[in-house]
Amino acid sequence: MSRWQPGTRDRLESAALELFTEQGFANTTVPEITARAGLTTRTFFRHFADKREVLFAVEDGLPGVVASLMAEAPASATPVVLVAWGLDLVARTRFAGQWEHLRRRRTVIRTDKGLRERELRKLAVLSTAIADSFRSRGLDELTATLAGRYATTALATALDRWLDQDAERPLTDYVQDTLHALHALTADEGR
Amino acid sequence: MSRWQPGTRDRLESAALELFTEQGFANTTVPEITARAGLTTRTFFRHFADKREVLFAVEDGLPGVVASLMAEAPASATPVVLVAWGLDLVARTRFAGQWEHLRRRRTVIRTDKGLRERELRKLAVLSTAIADSFRSRGLDELTATLAGRYATTALATALDRWLDQDAERPLTDYVQDTLHALHALTADEGR
Repeated sequence: MSRWQPGTRDRLESAALELFTEQGFANTTVPEITARAGLTTRTFFRHFADKREVLFAVEDGLPGVVASLMAEAPASATPVVLVAWGLDLVARTRFAGQWEHLRRRRTVIRTDKGLRERELRKLAVLSTAIADSFRSRGLDELTATLAGRYATTALATALDRWLDQDAERPLTDYVQDTLHALHALTADEGR
Repeated sequence: MSRWQPGTRDRLESAALELFTEQGFANTTVPEITARAGLTTRTFFRHFADKREVLFAVEDGLPGVVASLMAEAPASATPVVLVAWGLDLVARTRFAGQWEHLRRRRTVIRTDKGLRERELRKLAVLSTAIADSFRSRGLDELTATLAGRYATTALATALDRWLDQDAERPLTDYVQDTLHALHALTADEGR
């Protein structure tokens, strides 16, 4: 089997999340993570720069995910319709069944300032990827930037509320609530 | 003169920004900053935990600024009207004349991943402060959260565009452009 087998990153992430939960992020070392995953330290550093990065393995794929979503999207849709469509799709496919994992991940991230900052950077990277894809669809610079931030605000808010509650109600419901509340907020201007 | 004189933090911030600009953030030490400011290292550490924090001295005051703005705000205004009013006021008072300083600060922050993450945390802190103040005005949890993120998105976007261009046009113009574009983006839903 190749040492690049696809499961390596997932195994390291699972082992790290287990250890961070059991004994804390600060108290966990890379050798402990690799021992738990049954892999070598060398393998770890082929995949991640440090133990913090293990929790952000998914980030590298974000621009690609956004680009392929956009490629499937109806050409005539307005930006907010596109965002609603994309978030709904992502909530139903990528996040379904992930409640338990994401909830544990969030608990760890909240314990450490450096992890919280890194999580904010992940959102900023996603926002830029979305903005870039809107730009390549011909949207002006300012509107594209705002559309990226609008989408990540909605996603982050919906995810947080989903993880605050329980796994019974699907994430798509929280996405809809959030987009509805955002619409009501901004439509209020004229009153 | 008291060792807590109000100018101390400003002097340390100016000295640090000069040195970061001249020789880079990574290459600058706390003793160099204090030497440039004519202060002791002990004084530095009474004010800041490390050299990174010097660039975020303003953050401690953010919740207070938001709370006092809100106290002056018309009680009947809708959240977006309040945000527009608050951002305009802040742009005219706190940011006027700061273009040169903020531009240099942004240049330094862009050179370092850790500084960029810290800047994102500053925005998150501001967003939370705004959301809290909306909550205490009786807004529901979700709408208050979104109003905080809406306000910081508008401010960060307007500031970036202001610093991309020139100091001639006032920041208030960029705030208006940004709020207008946000409104147009979200109003597009029905089309």
